[in-house]
Amino acid sequence: MHTLVRRTHEERILRALREFGPLSRGEISDRVGLSRTTTSEITGELIERRAIVAVAPDAADRVGRGRPADRLVLDPGAGQVVGIDFNHGRVQVAVADASQEIIAAGDARYDLDSAWRERAQIAFALLERLTVETGVHYGALQGIGIGFPGPFSPQGSRLALGRDKRDTSAVDGARELREHFAQRFDVPIMLDNNARLAGLAEAIWGGQSASSDLIYLRLSHGIGGGLVQGGVLSTGASGYAGEIGHITVIVDGAECRCGKRGCLETVASVPAVLAACARRGAPVADLAALRASVASGDPIVGAVLRDVGDAVGRVLGGLAVVLDPAEIVIGGPLVQAAPMIVDQARSAIGYELIPIPQAAPVIRAASLGDDDGARGAIAAVLRRSALLQRYPDDGVARDLPSPLQRSTT
Amino acid sequence: MHTLVRRTHEERILRALREFGPLSRGEISDRVGLSRTTTSEITGELIERRAIVAVAPDAADRVGRGRPADRLVLDPGAGQVVGIDFNHGRVQVAVADASQEIIAAGDARYDLDSAWRERAQIAFALLERLTVETGVHYGALQGIGIGFPGPFSPQGSRLALGRDKRDTSAVDGARELREHFAQRFDVPIMLDNNARLAGLAEAIWGGQSASSDLIYLRLSHGIGGGLVQGGVLSTGASGYAGEIGHITVIVDGAECRCGKRGCLETVASVPAVLAACARRGAPVADLAALRASVASGDPIVGAVLRDVGDAVGRVLGGLAVVLDPAEIVIGGPLVQAAPMIVDQARSAIGYELIPIPQAAPVIRAASLGDDDGARGAIAAVLRRSALLQRYPDDGVARDLPSPLQRSTT
Repeated sequence: MHTLVRRTHEERILRALREFGPLSRGEISDRVGLSRTTTSEITGELIERRAIVAVAPDAADRVGRGRPADRLVLDPGAGQVVGIDFNHGRVQVAVADASQEIIAAGDARYDLDSAWRERAQIAFALLERLTVETGVHYGALQGIGIGFPGPFSPQGSRLALGRDKRDTSAVDGARELREHFAQRFDVPIMLDNNARLAGLAEAIWGGQSASSDLIYLRLSHGIGGGLVQGGVLSTGASGYAGEIGHITVIVDGAECRCGKRGCLETVASVPAVLAACARRGAPVADLAALRASVASGDPIVGAVLRDVGDAVGRVLGGLAVVLDPAEIVIGGPLVQAAPMIVDQARSAIGYELIPIPQAAPVIRAASLGDDDGARGAIAAVLRRSALLQRYPDDGVARDLPSPLQRSTT
Repeated sequence: MHTLVRRTHEERILRALREFGPLSRGEISDRVGLSRTTTSEITGELIERRAIVAVAPDAADRVGRGRPADRLVLDPGAGQVVGIDFNHGRVQVAVADASQEIIAAGDARYDLDSAWRERAQIAFALLERLTVETGVHYGALQGIGIGFPGPFSPQGSRLALGRDKRDTSAVDGARELREHFAQRFDVPIMLDNNARLAGLAEAIWGGQSASSDLIYLRLSHGIGGGLVQGGVLSTGASGYAGEIGHITVIVDGAECRCGKRGCLETVASVPAVLAACARRGAPVADLAALRASVASGDPIVGAVLRDVGDAVGRVLGGLAVVLDPAEIVIGGPLVQAAPMIVDQARSAIGYELIPIPQAAPVIRAASLGDDDGARGAIAAVLRRSALLQRYPDDGVARDLPSPLQRSTT
């Protein structure tokens, strides 16, 4: 059977099982409108993949003549895709079942000095912990998506960040990470920039409906972003699209880890904000302390955050003038601690926009939680969203669904 | 016959006629590999449209037995699509034949105080003049594309530029212009922003090969632009993508006609540059005088233009960090008069880019001439470029070629 057709049938069967609970093969065949043969063939494959399981009939089913049929049910513990986001000092994991529902999620801290080998080990331990806590298992795993921090191209791990071209630590890190996971799991592994994946998740699941023109900004230890334009997740010509954190906002400003000066990241990242608070006489130790200062109405912290929102808004407003998005989404841990940044940015964006009332975008805080990057990684592995129709082929062999259909979730 | 298939056959026949000159139907059939029936059917339609003409056989052809066959030839004068660009005080026209070649082009000035009715009349007179000068005729016309100056959405003439929302002159102008043309020509008429159309033309014909990720900036009386991303001409969510001229470059700078302050247009448009030269003690009357001052090495004019190139480069560099284009193209009459702007912008862009060597875009001056906007309008009407695959449907009934094939020109 044609792969695409088979996948469509598979999705309809999985949806029926999710909606109606346990069904016999005959009931599935009737509900989904497939022949008994096709239904048997596809459910056979799903059972083999451990996406669904056959359960023996109840005594209650023993009515009428003959042996009652087995009933099939979604394996509630079968992780089909794992999404992982390595962010600053924390790995976040989400596990999706065959119908793309998140069936387990969690996070763990890692030391900032740790090697990628150790971070991978911490991710593995987290996945095992989820097995114990939720009963999820990985025997049916189809693929793993990994969100990698910092500028990263899905078209090949060719990054050389920093003015010194010999600094290839990020390339090496990504390669190493992929190898650790490949040794542990015999499934395809996809890597991409974690902020882009978070933006993808916001575009698919964050708003009222899937967004076809969106600018996403993630304020974290670093600043990253993602763009969706004309219904397509942007990668750019070489895979680096979305690096909103490295637009210059202060000429000859503070040195940025990218090698430039005065990037947005030197003003609106978590460490930049903490440093500004300290410099202006209101030191806060970390994001929790910042959140407390915001709650208590500390005027200095408030002034710092207004400046941050202004800088963010000026950059996003300029981009909005050129890209004409339907939605601008600002997320990440800094926004969770200080949501007022979004309000301040909204006002600054309003000033930057050309006064064309019809073109004004919706500006909102990110609505997904900390697992946004991990969820985006799952979406990127599954490729069921139309937003990924022009996404570069990463060589991962997968049963490709139609790139033209909208995400079914 | 399926429209798409028929169009493909049509294109192959037209290409054969362009390449080999007059051919009999039999010769076409052999060369193109179509049946005699199909060839007759399609050439019949092309003759009806006056795209090709049948010529009586020469005496030289009267060899062998029987009546020699008519030979078919491209009608060298049959304008199939007219592209028009209304720029500042000048209308530029290009006429394409059935094989998309430009067979006539010209321009005419109009008074800046003139109404759209008068401007349309001047365009009509120009088209008639081209008939006299080149023999082009419009009996086979399939459509007209019009490039309109200023922010404009192809998704509907809904512009209301200026802080005063009642200022709907541009909407009214576009509507009026369309009506004048519709009264004169009974063919579909498409309008879009002229800078976006010029960017489309540069993406299709301007570089070594069609560009799938390009930022185009046009420095003229105003400043406009166009974006191609992931192989698609960007329109944005409401049709206004590409307004690079209205990114703020000077906080609290000079008032811009868009209602904001300090837009790139207040620094790098033709009037802004002339004003800056005058202010700094080196008045130049117009672009011709500016060109002369550049040629003679006027140091003040040189300093003004370096500042302009810097401002342009900072804006384009910031966009390049986020969009990761393969190409950045700077065009328009100001660049033609002062090409050094591109060099200065190149150096400023280099400073803005994140140091990822693989992601550095090619930065070049526009390579098409003054008919870039008109040529882009022809491309937008024909829709033969894959760049237009997601372009909004303007309701123009046309024989759509495959959106997935690359432009064949």
